[in-house]
Amino acid sequence: MNWALTLDLVGVFFFAISGSLLAVQRGYDIVGSLLLGSLTGLGGGVIRDLIIGVPPTAFAEPVHLAAPVAAAALVFFLTHGIERYSRPLLIFDAAGLALFCTTGTVKALEAGMNPVAAALLGVTTGVGGGLLRDVVANRDPQLFNSSDLYAVPAFIGATVVAGAWFTALPNLATVTIAAAVVFAFRVLSLRFRWRIPHAKGQPRRGRASE
Amino acid sequence: MNWALTLDLVGVFFFAISGSLLAVQRGYDIVGSLLLGSLTGLGGGVIRDLIIGVPPTAFAEPVHLAAPVAAAALVFFLTHGIERYSRPLLIFDAAGLALFCTTGTVKALEAGMNPVAAALLGVTTGVGGGLLRDVVANRDPQLFNSSDLYAVPAFIGATVVAGAWFTALPNLATVTIAAAVVFAFRVLSLRFRWRIPHAKGQPRRGRASE
Amino acid sequence: MNWALTLDLVGVFFFAISGSLLAVQRGYDIVGSLLLGSLTGLGGGVIRDLIIGVPPTAFAEPVHLAAPVAAAALVFFLTHGIERYSRPLLIFDAAGLALFCTTGTVKALEAGMNPVAAALLGVTTGVGGGLLRDVVANRDPQLFNSSDLYAVPAFIGATVVAGAWFTALPNLATVTIAAAVVFAFRVLSLRFRWRIPHAKGQPRRGRASE
Repeated sequence: MNWALTLDLVGVFFFAISGSLLAVQRGYDIVGSLLLGSLTGLGGGVIRDLIIGVPPTAFAEPVHLAAPVAAAALVFFLTHGIERYSRPLLIFDAAGLALFCTTGTVKALEAGMNPVAAALLGVTTGVGGGLLRDVVANRDPQLFNSSDLYAVPAFIGATVVAGAWFTALPNLATVTIAAAVVFAFRVLSLRFRWRIPHAKGQPRRGRASE
Repeated sequence: MNWALTLDLVGVFFFAISGSLLAVQRGYDIVGSLLLGSLTGLGGGVIRDLIIGVPPTAFAEPVHLAAPVAAAALVFFLTHGIERYSRPLLIFDAAGLALFCTTGTVKALEAGMNPVAAALLGVTTGVGGGLLRDVVANRDPQLFNSSDLYAVPAFIGATVVAGAWFTALPNLATVTIAAAVVFAFRVLSLRFRWRIPHAKGQPRRGRASE
Repeated sequence: MNWALTLDLVGVFFFAISGSLLAVQRGYDIVGSLLLGSLTGLGGGVIRDLIIGVPPTAFAEPVHLAAPVAAAALVFFLTHGIERYSRPLLIFDAAGLALFCTTGTVKALEAGMNPVAAALLGVTTGVGGGLLRDVVANRDPQLFNSSDLYAVPAFIGATVVAGAWFTALPNLATVTIAAAVVFAFRVLSLRFRWRIPHAKGQPRRGRASE
């Protein structure tokens, strides 16, 4: 579907920006920025496609490669001391998460997965690229940072889309609304420092990364 | 097979406990605990199924998701300062290793792999979940800790099961005995600090993790 | 093809040496050395085969396992304080990179991928094993070290091989020449400290690892 490909490319672009920004913060050169952006943007989708059992779109449709190239170029030419700010990385990461957890669920449903597995794969697609980014950049994954809610909006978005399956095939409107909810939830949770409970008697820690 | 599914679920549960416990020790919240438990419990099996070339059971059979959910809930409600002790994590990890290296070998043999490849895949399944757990939690993998024997019992268990292939299809009794041997070997090696040799002239290091 | 298998095994051997050497430097025991060597030598090829959609050769053709075993034995018996030197690791790593980025591209082309995707998969195959090695050994990946050129020679080698596709099927001569170019480029870039530009105003950092 055309709108699915478009949303996918936009998601790859946003995640790739987050990877390239982290690369710049880490002092990587332009090639490292392209590589980390590509891994972040394309990684979640490759995992998704391998689990579904179809050829990964990143390789089957080379147009996907344009997104990380554009992202790395943009970060390279536009950043002036941007590495001192963590906000842009968080915003682009949130946009990638919103698109991938919803489109990942759609792809899984279209491949015939049951709604529970589809929602799980949507979450995996959403958090996979960022997890790979943080693991290879050797920092504590944002996913596990107890000071912010990262997986919760992904769960919500994937569940909304999988739930829409019971009424009708998810369409562009459903997916767009679900993605907007995920993005809004994520940004608001960062802005107002929403938290979730820890195990009893456990020490609380601040931001794991930065 | 029913007993194979049961052993698989028990293995997922044990590994998920180890992941959720590590998450608590690391100060992750309940969602992080569920995610790290799921990755630890389901990761080895997903790698196994991707290499065999079948749909990952974690997604094909959603009952697998119940195990990490139960593990995260158990760890959340029962831990009182448990994060100070590393022993429970080691015991649950050993039980998961024992079950996965043996059932992983069985699945590979049933899929038509030759015994050598099946044993290798059994070891990969056994150590894969714990390796993913340690890598994403950004700690030195237990697998490479030269102060304890982690891969050796997995090799033994996988080899015993693959060897049983030459006499008859591995059955519940064979797998249970092999898993018990792996678990006993692992626990005894920890208790009595068994070691294996280093390269000549190499500095010996203590526990890499903790 | 026979020469393809031979080059593949040689590549596995070289990368496995680099993994086993790093394991010795890290104080791992002989089993850890075998495991890290296996992961480094076989990891890139497993990723390549999963993306192509064929059974990973590391499991389908057990002769591949001989290479990491030989590498771990060699490193175990021959190292006398070798862990103090980083040069041998870099040389063996460069040889593995040269072989894998070229043979990976050939395998992708033979599987019917378009040249762009094939070159990307060649780069992925070339850098994949070393990236897995550095990630599980919990060090900053060499791939992202802005003080040396690692991905650039892989891009060049994969592009040369994919370009040869337009004239004729890449053969042993093409692949050997491309691999030699990659190896020479990599070694010369280390010797003469070639660099590539950073984003504007970004702090430059020295060697990320060691």
